[in-house]
Amino acid sequence: AAAVELIHAYSLVHDDLPCMDDDELRRGRPTAHVKFGVANAMLAGDALQPLAFELLGLMPIAPALIVQATQLLARSAGSLGMVGGQAIDCASVGLALSGEELKLMHSMKTGAMLEASVLLGGIVAGAGSAVRQGLEAYAAAIGLAFQVVDDILAVTADTATLGKTAGKDAAENKPTYVSIMGMDGSRDLLQSLHAQAHAALLPLGPSAAHLASIADYIVGRDR
Amino acid sequence: AAAVELIHAYSLVHDDLPCMDDDELRRGRPTAHVKFGVANAMLAGDALQPLAFELLGLMPIAPALIVQATQLLARSAGSLGMVGGQAIDCASVGLALSGEELKLMHSMKTGAMLEASVLLGGIVAGAGSAVRQGLEAYAAAIGLAFQVVDDILAVTADTATLGKTAGKDAAENKPTYVSIMGMDGSRDLLQSLHAQAHAALLPLGPSAAHLASIADYIVGRDR
Repeated sequence: AAAVELIHAYSLVHDDLPCMDDDELRRGRPTAHVKFGVANAMLAGDALQPLAFELLGLMPIAPALIVQATQLLARSAGSLGMVGGQAIDCASVGLALSGEELKLMHSMKTGAMLEASVLLGGIVAGAGSAVRQGLEAYAAAIGLAFQVVDDILAVTADTATLGKTAGKDAAENKPTYVSIMGMDGSRDLLQSLHAQAHAALLPLGPSAAHLASIADYIVGRDR
Repeated sequence: AAAVELIHAYSLVHDDLPCMDDDELRRGRPTAHVKFGVANAMLAGDALQPLAFELLGLMPIAPALIVQATQLLARSAGSLGMVGGQAIDCASVGLALSGEELKLMHSMKTGAMLEASVLLGGIVAGAGSAVRQGLEAYAAAIGLAFQVVDDILAVTADTATLGKTAGKDAAENKPTYVSIMGMDGSRDLLQSLHAQAHAALLPLGPSAAHLASIADYIVGRDR
């Protein structure tokens, strides 16, 4: 969990930089580069990332499982995952993406790390292949759902509630689910993903109750 | 070796960015941000880093050794190694660093990764503690020697020979070995480090001949 949080934190610090989203607010507070300067913010992100991989090595589990966890986190954070999705996002500003292209971008940009955070738990717990497949399907559904909610909230919520600047994507002509499918289509997709997440957890039985409640939280959140 | 090169490549791409050294030339060619834009250059660096850790997991050696290698590379690249040294370097522009402070900065900024590149070979080869200690002392000596040569060449070589902009550190008032110890003091230190590197390899016997020749190369290089 700490390793995932370190990757997530570095990605937020870099994402807020002037060369990316140029944001001045994050979680209601000044962004790292506003407070410490652009060079220090970039270096902080650069140092948070290897710390994530160092932490994985400290887990008191079999070395073979640590290697599996490291491979998963590295792939999810890299060019075929989070950073690759971010690069597609940057290259898409002002372009008319299709629904499929938008889905691919989000599955890499935010879905890969969310999926990793779920599957890492399975790896550490020594889960078998049936449980891992259920976790994968669950994670893919809540990953997309998270982004759909993000896009809806960017239109409906205000800056104080979000803790970051509202309406920014629309102002910069970034494609979103709402701009492509409309508000009604986005809400329908969200309900469908919610149902998929619950269905994917059925093979796990009652032990998946907490994961189910996370899916409910993601769909119901207002910030 | 590929994992070390990936970390090194990402560090160069980020180091050349406008918020850091703002360099337009690297190895005689346009830097990544000049050719592909600042956002893409930052993302390329961000994606090269996890690829290094992913590659380590593909080595056909015992998982416990992979974990050791991952820990070493992560520590060497992070806040207590390369990135931490870079941050100290950035914070030192225009300040009068002592010789000891300069040595600490370089041991982190460039020495840690150079040491890792030597020790990783020892880990992969299953070296015992005596050989690992010899490798550590050797790596520390050639790491510092590399930086002393860099500082000497920044004064004596021209841009065409270096493949990067010559005289830049002096123009920006960055502390260097030459600015602190003078040219003669720097050359004396270099000879002392060269001797230390050879002495550290004695316990390794004739199998260390190639490492000895690398020390000779670093001390004798003119670019």
